[in-house]
Amino acid sequence: MTLPTRVSLVDVGPRDGLQNEKEPVSTAHKAQLVAMLQAAGLKEIEVTSFVSPKWVPQMADNVAVMAAIERRADVRYSVLTPNLKGLEAALPTRPDEIVVFAAASEAFSQKNINCSIAESIERFAPVVQAAHAAGIKVRGALSCALGCPYEGEISPDKVERVAGLMRAIGVDHLGVADTIGVGTPRKVQAALERALKHFPLQELSGHFHDTYGQALANIYASLELGVHTFDASVAGLGGCPYAKGATGNVATEDVVFMLNGLGIETGVDLDKLVDAGAFISGVLGRPPVSRVARAVLAKRVG
Amino acid sequence: MTLPTRVSLVDVGPRDGLQNEKEPVSTAHKAQLVAMLQAAGLKEIEVTSFVSPKWVPQMADNVAVMAAIERRADVRYSVLTPNLKGLEAALPTRPDEIVVFAAASEAFSQKNINCSIAESIERFAPVVQAAHAAGIKVRGALSCALGCPYEGEISPDKVERVAGLMRAIGVDHLGVADTIGVGTPRKVQAALERALKHFPLQELSGHFHDTYGQALANIYASLELGVHTFDASVAGLGGCPYAKGATGNVATEDVVFMLNGLGIETGVDLDKLVDAGAFISGVLGRPPVSRVARAVLAKRVG
Repeated sequence: MTLPTRVSLVDVGPRDGLQNEKEPVSTAHKAQLVAMLQAAGLKEIEVTSFVSPKWVPQMADNVAVMAAIERRADVRYSVLTPNLKGLEAALPTRPDEIVVFAAASEAFSQKNINCSIAESIERFAPVVQAAHAAGIKVRGALSCALGCPYEGEISPDKVERVAGLMRAIGVDHLGVADTIGVGTPRKVQAALERALKHFPLQELSGHFHDTYGQALANIYASLELGVHTFDASVAGLGGCPYAKGATGNVATEDVVFMLNGLGIETGVDLDKLVDAGAFISGVLGRPPVSRVARAVLAKRVG
Repeated sequence: MTLPTRVSLVDVGPRDGLQNEKEPVSTAHKAQLVAMLQAAGLKEIEVTSFVSPKWVPQMADNVAVMAAIERRADVRYSVLTPNLKGLEAALPTRPDEIVVFAAASEAFSQKNINCSIAESIERFAPVVQAAHAAGIKVRGALSCALGCPYEGEISPDKVERVAGLMRAIGVDHLGVADTIGVGTPRKVQAALERALKHFPLQELSGHFHDTYGQALANIYASLELGVHTFDASVAGLGGCPYAKGATGNVATEDVVFMLNGLGIETGVDLDKLVDAGAFISGVLGRPPVSRVARAVLAKRVG
């Protein structure tokens, strides 16, 4: 089985990783993190979100962060905009891509955003239209694609159905997200295969949480299907809101280590990436969750 | 690609996991750990080692531990015996299996046991003979099979060579060990394929360290070759002696979670296994390294 020769990594650390931090991280530190990620070679970075500061106070400085980052022409900067109000606030900051999200689980959709899956998709339709009118690409995140904290296991049928709804309203790219990290390799392959009925390989990505340590095995299994775009979060930023103290996003360092070993090009310099993770971990006052970061930092001390 | 329907797990926590703990763990606690592992359904347990207490003081109570465990007829208890003296001390304790080890790296062999690979194999030959004369199975551990802290990457040629030397002296089972955790899926497959030239599938196992987070991806890649025996250490006991603070043995809990998700039978009850890991982690005064254990324990509290 031939694996892809090149993989694109989207670092979601500045947004997904930091959004649940209680202590405010300064705008300057956020911009510094983005700077270090792009210095490490990341070409796609999820920078911030445009949601109500009442809901996510950590992202209240979204406009300031977008203004503070020093942009590179070859890096794509994305922001989360769950509704038209968010999109309108985001547009003047010139994001390259916006992210909307729907759940594969009806119970999660109801509890998380107080509406059905179908209603959530309807709400996104005008956001997608407005983004396209502004020449901006739309990434759809499909949360709870492998399991749901309320419903338990999620069938591939549901993934296919919601992927189809997302495609129907014009979403350009689908990210299949294992929000609670319960997926294992063959189940992940089954979910991706069904998503591939609506999105081509080059517009499908995997977003895996490492809550149960499965993320790298799941990424390897995804590579076997030819999937070659993955979200990851530097230092493993972002815990699991459904199990306090548990692990959340897979660490970008760990993904890069595996891809390097597989001979797959990412364009990322692992040492500089470890620097970026060490920097933000220092700001947060705790060690990186990334196993690679811990091993590399331990060896540097030596 | 069809995966095995059943996997045998060897919990090496009581020996490999505890051996480098500085604070002595009591014989009673060690026996309790073994009792909890077998209650969780583990059928193979590496209990202790018969080496000089000057080198490994934590295992000085080897005879007492072997006497303290309550044996089950359907569980295989193994002990490490690196030389004839160790074997002679071990025999009266009636182990079901002994473990000897050689390195795939010449530099590691010299630095770790002060002799060449060939010399180390020569020394094992009488140990293997004496074990067989006593009706005891011999497992050979092939350390540094993917990488060496002194030599760097290890070629599959070396794995094949040393596997052949082990087979030639009568070793019954080979464990391919990624001692420093640098292996990635395709390199692991290459190493295992070469080891399979000398050992049949049912007598080959993988021993992966999670230092760089790769262990589960490597186990999944091994399953794709049909390998169906793996070492693991409850709670991820046993750090990495080559990078202080880094992760060592893959946690049995994480392996069982993946195998459960793949529909592969192990006979292990994950909740009872988490109990065993929580018990020994409590004795050691620190949380389990296992991501599954952390998530499960967080949910129990939460």
